[in-house]
Parts: sequence; structure tokens; C-alpha cells
Amino acid sequence: MPIYTCTTTESTLPRSIKAALAREIATIHSQINHVPSTYVNVAFHELSGDNLYTDGAPASPVLVSGWIREGHPKTEVTRLATEIASAVTRIAGVPAEQVLVVFESSPASFAVEGGRVLPEPGQEQAWIAGT
Amino acid sequence: MPIYTCTTTESTLPRSIKAALAREIATIHSQINHVPSTYVNVAFHELSGDNLYTDGAPASPVLVSGWIREGHPKTEVTRLATEIASAVTRIAGVPAEQVLVVFESSPASFAVEGGRVLPEPGQEQAWIAGT
Amino acid sequence: MPIYTCTTTESTLPRSIKAALAREIATIHSQINHVPSTYVNVAFHELSGDNLYTDGAPASPVLVSGWIREGHPKTEVTRLATEIASAVTRIAGVPAEQVLVVFESSPASFAVEGGRVLPEPGQEQAWIAGT
Repeated sequence: MPIYTCTTTESTLPRSIKAALAREIATIHSQINHVPSTYVNVAFHELSGDNLYTDGAPASPVLVSGWIREGHPKTEVTRLATEIASAVTRIAGVPAEQVLVVFESSPASFAVEGGRVLPEPGQEQAWIAGT
Repeated sequence: MPIYTCTTTESTLPRSIKAALAREIATIHSQINHVPSTYVNVAFHELSGDNLYTDGAPASPVLVSGWIREGHPKTEVTRLATEIASAVTRIAGVPAEQVLVVFESSPASFAVEGGRVLPEPGQEQAWIAGT
Repeated sequence: MPIYTCTTTESTLPRSIKAALAREIATIHSQINHVPSTYVNVAFHELSGDNLYTDGAPASPVLVSGWIREGHPKTEVTRLATEIASAVTRIAGVPAEQVLVVFESSPASFAVEGGRVLPEPGQEQAWIAGT
């Protein structure tokens, strides 16, 4: 259900770190948002050095954008953002100052997976049982 | 006006399939959202195998994120998501379980095209006539 | 705090143009949204010619998606979109008809940077002083 997109420059995140981070994001998301980790997608966009800028100068932040269904408790989304940001620093060794995590959301009814409209938060079990 | 972003791994979607899918998305979007297909943008991000994960393991889902102006009827957005997801499976042969379509929206007044602020849903004809 | 993502085809924006555009976006954003330019991130996604379509045909629009915190005055977001679109045409020489700028937003509490939850619009000074 969720989509995480991590944007950074080439070689900022070695291959083994990307795999470890994808696993950790799946684990954290599953625990906080009550979705089996099998539904957690993580995409890495590795840009060349002349394609990423902070303050108008080439830079290598790690920008994480997550999409989740609308309706999760706001405090939980904040906790999710905090823990994902912390995981990037802990696993990839990227200073917190270079890590930005942002969540966007839209109604579950605006999303389709496995040919079916996604469930509202709290209705996951019935939806999964229906597959 | 709309932007569709399809993220998957290299070679999941052959070149001819991407072209066919871009055409079909333009057609479906035009029919349901009353926007001429000339305004429909589709971008494909093809990631290397170590840059896309589901459940913490390398995977090849097709993740489609669409941006549309706020204010379209919700049932129409659901229909749009359902038909786009179905088109990915029909045209690209990707199993429905690997296809996720998500729409996000923001106010038309937050978007500019051709140097002009986008019209509210329902005001497209007057806006287009004004070009 | 903000993230700007510019998607186009390879060679549409030469290296020096990308750098100039990143600087100009940082300047415009800083002036209108009252955030120091040091917090403005700009990412360029340069796709191969068979990965970007308008109206179902290969095309080279410049698609700019910006993420900002919810709560900025709506008229300011419109002004921001208008000025960013204008900057793309002025600096990169891309015709206005091929430039689309879209802003999306979500609550500041859904975002973490430097290990801290982002401030609500208007609270930036106190937040920055707290670093």
C-alpha cells in the first residue's frame, strides 16, 4: 500500500545499505501503520551529482517521500516520519541535517492495488482476508 | 494538466509497451476527467534492480502515481484509478498484484501551465478557449 | 524544507542551466515562503526520450512538482507556482506551453528534517533558532 521514494546522489547509499534500509522501512511501517510488510514499496532514485541541489549548490541530501492513505492518526504519522528519518541516519550514516522525510496522503478510495480499491485505515484485515 | 509517474525496474516495460501505455492513459484520463489528451503527461522511471523493493526484497512492481486537480468527484477518481490499474495489467501483462495506482491532488490554483493558473474542474473549456 | 522535483528528458536542460535554475528556485522560494534558501532542495530527473510522453507521444515538457508545508496562504502558493514557471521559461528557454508547475502540500507535522518535526508556516524563526 505505501510507497516510499528515497532520492539522493549516486554512491551516497551503497547497495547493501539500500537493501538494509528497505527492510527497516518495511519493518517500521508495518509496526506503526498496521500494514503487513509485504505491502511496503521502497524506490531509490540515485541522481548524478549535477542533478541534486540544496541552496542552489550541488548537495547530497537523502530526501524520503512517503505516500500513505489518509486517515491515519496524525501523531502516528509524525512518529513514522521521525523513526524513518532516524533509520536513515542509523543505517546509512547520513547526518540528520541531510535527511528530510515527508509524508503525503490521499483517500484510500483514490488508490487501487491487486485490482481492488485500498481499504480505509482500520479496515486492513478485512481487505486482506478478501484477497 | 495531469502528471502520471510510472516507477518500475528496467526491462519490466519494453519500449513499445511504454508507448502503448502512455497512449491508453491519455485516452482513459481524457474520457473520465474531461481534459483533452493533449494535456496528459506520463513519465516512466526505470530503476535498476537494486533500487526497488517490496517487503524489503528486490521486486518489480509497477507503481503509478497520478496528480490531478482537487475537486473531481471522488467516485470518478476511484474509477480512474481502477481503469488505469486495469490498463497496466492488460497492456503490459503485469499481474494485478504487482500494480499499485495512487492519485494525489491539490488545488488547481496551486498549478501553472502555459503561463496560466489551471482551471477548477468543470472550467476546462473556458480555460482552453482562452489560450 | 521544500522539495522541488523537475522531470524532463536528457539534454533539455544543460548542466549550467540546471545549476542556474536551482539557484533561482531557491531564491524565489526563500522570498515568497520565508524559508532560508539553505533549506531548499531541487532534484532533476532526466529521462531518456522513450520515457516521457504528452498526449501519448514522446515529448519534452518540464514538469516541476513542489512539496511545501500546508498552511501557506493560497495566493502565495499561486504566486510561487507562477514565478517558478516563469523562471523555467526565462532561464532555460523552454516555451511556457511545455512548462507545468504543481504544488502539493501536507501538514508540517508529517515531515522531519535535522531530526526534528518541521515548524508550521510562520513558526520558522523559532524553529531555526532551536537548531
